[in-house]
Amino acid sequence: MKPSTLNIASPLCPVPLRDYPQVILAHGGGGKLSAELIEHIFAPAFANEHVTLLSDSTPLCLPSQRIAVSTDSFVVQPLFFPGGSIGDLAVNGTVNDLAMSGARPMYLTAGFILEEGFEMEQLIRIAKDMGRAARDAGVAIIAGDTKVVERGHGDGCYINTSGIGVLPAERKIAVDQAKPGDAVILSGSVGDHGVAIMSVREGLDFESPILSDCASLADLVQKMLDTSTNIRAMRDPTRGGVAMSLNEIAAASRCGIELDDECIPIKEPVRSACEFLGLDPLLVANEGKLIAIVAKSDADQVLNTMRAHPLGCDAAIVGHVVEDDNQLVVSRTAVGTKRIVSIPVGEQLPRIC
Amino acid sequence: MKPSTLNIASPLCPVPLRDYPQVILAHGGGGKLSAELIEHIFAPAFANEHVTLLSDSTPLCLPSQRIAVSTDSFVVQPLFFPGGSIGDLAVNGTVNDLAMSGARPMYLTAGFILEEGFEMEQLIRIAKDMGRAARDAGVAIIAGDTKVVERGHGDGCYINTSGIGVLPAERKIAVDQAKPGDAVILSGSVGDHGVAIMSVREGLDFESPILSDCASLADLVQKMLDTSTNIRAMRDPTRGGVAMSLNEIAAASRCGIELDDECIPIKEPVRSACEFLGLDPLLVANEGKLIAIVAKSDADQVLNTMRAHPLGCDAAIVGHVVEDDNQLVVSRTAVGTKRIVSIPVGEQLPRIC
Repeated sequence: MKPSTLNIASPLCPVPLRDYPQVILAHGGGGKLSAELIEHIFAPAFANEHVTLLSDSTPLCLPSQRIAVSTDSFVVQPLFFPGGSIGDLAVNGTVNDLAMSGARPMYLTAGFILEEGFEMEQLIRIAKDMGRAARDAGVAIIAGDTKVVERGHGDGCYINTSGIGVLPAERKIAVDQAKPGDAVILSGSVGDHGVAIMSVREGLDFESPILSDCASLADLVQKMLDTSTNIRAMRDPTRGGVAMSLNEIAAASRCGIELDDECIPIKEPVRSACEFLGLDPLLVANEGKLIAIVAKSDADQVLNTMRAHPLGCDAAIVGHVVEDDNQLVVSRTAVGTKRIVSIPVGEQLPRIC
Repeated sequence: MKPSTLNIASPLCPVPLRDYPQVILAHGGGGKLSAELIEHIFAPAFANEHVTLLSDSTPLCLPSQRIAVSTDSFVVQPLFFPGGSIGDLAVNGTVNDLAMSGARPMYLTAGFILEEGFEMEQLIRIAKDMGRAARDAGVAIIAGDTKVVERGHGDGCYINTSGIGVLPAERKIAVDQAKPGDAVILSGSVGDHGVAIMSVREGLDFESPILSDCASLADLVQKMLDTSTNIRAMRDPTRGGVAMSLNEIAAASRCGIELDDECIPIKEPVRSACEFLGLDPLLVANEGKLIAIVAKSDADQVLNTMRAHPLGCDAAIVGHVVEDDNQLVVSRTAVGTKRIVSIPVGEQLPRIC
């Protein structure tokens, strides 16, 4: 990296870290260099009233005693991809997990495991992405930790985020709450994130670029909750895709789900890419989409609310919950045949998030 | 690994994971195999009323709106060492960070980054260690996540734990609260953890084995808080050791600290090992010790309480806080000379926690 590069990042890094264009082991040692990372990179990027990143723990006062807690580690490769970075993912992934329980996401922690030799410029970009994503999602990153492992023992940068959201006392949105007759609503097109990652890894060049859908769903969910008190369950279909999320809901709620294949929104370049790569779009990870199980009575109203939101403009009712002792997820194709949408054993695409 | 090995672990693993004696990429894919890890390893090991590890997030009801939050990633090598494992460390490290703010630690999350090929038997041991350490510390592991990276891109097992503790409304224990005249109390001997790790890495054989001091300080802290309302600051001297913790307190509180070298408890084998390895014991990491800054009036009372506790039986007043615009930590040696105890730039021993 050229010494001048870090000058460009000077709003984030008032004292350029020129002496260390790359991460060294001592940056994870808890000493002076660890403190410099915090002072010059993380604190400015995450700036908020709570940030006391030099303390062992951060005191907070919550607006409620009822909370939701979530944790997620991110090991995506490559770290930067069309439509986002590991920084965006690390924030939005945990924010979305909280939002799916009906919680209002409020606070995140961030734990970094860096590889010796990781470019400082990339760390600054990632920290900036996290700060921006957190502000966009309305959450504060309030505690952090950095460890550094020897060259060859990591993969540049792994990030864990854990999150706290507040839950209204009466709210019970969970995967075991689906009931026969409920509508299955999908907030938008499937497969964008997984195909965006895959296209970079495989060096594929599509006519129109495929971007990750990585985004915070917290605001969309809030508007849905304001519209209806009959949202039974929500899931963001990340690893394992829509297939995994629907199978989990079916199994937990002891019912079946019938999908209408033609109603599932999918962008044409994503469909083509999936055919080319031999992927089932229903198994591909998404990072800015949700599935909502909504009482039939409220389904149209919730759908309209979703369509009025930038992240839900392609929302569609894609199926419904049925009685089924076998708890199967079944998709009806255009020609009227049915196929079972089964759970993936592992994942089609490793390290997608 | 012999197929029979996992049978031995059968209370933890009712359906032996014989087919997978090692972790494969699909265990991190969010599909069936991820669910099996949870069902057969993590859920039984972490068993508690809250554990709903298949959900995106876990709902909780806290006894207070005032909380402390902490996060820490663990990359220690080797994963198993005299006196503990990465599992014990991952629980106790975050529990102790919460306790140092005067919080009562309650809940932990656990995020695993595993390397393809990691022995399943080792993962089971680590999960069991975490479960036992959590029960000992009085905390529940309530959410988890597992990612798997390709062979050669990790180092067996990295763990992030994030924690939530509850804080009484009136409690204000923080590194900036030290005042001239306060006593500096150390809960026991220094350097045990760092030297235990180092002795394994270097293949050193001491006459008496040196064990890590890894332990939860939550109970000791609770008893100290019951004894005195004049505990100003606490720190567990992990990375960077006692030197780092005291310098942080001095800087944050804008005062100096004078230590009496002879009063600092250190076990003879640890002292010898430090001399042999060229380490300063004040810079070596501890994982079950604390430094408390206590008003002079209450120091003897707090010391007596600590000495009555198994984790504080070697506690000693090792110095006191002084006025000093330069915010130096100074140690007085046996022969009356003084030396400045400065902050380490990085760390003497990488990957100690």
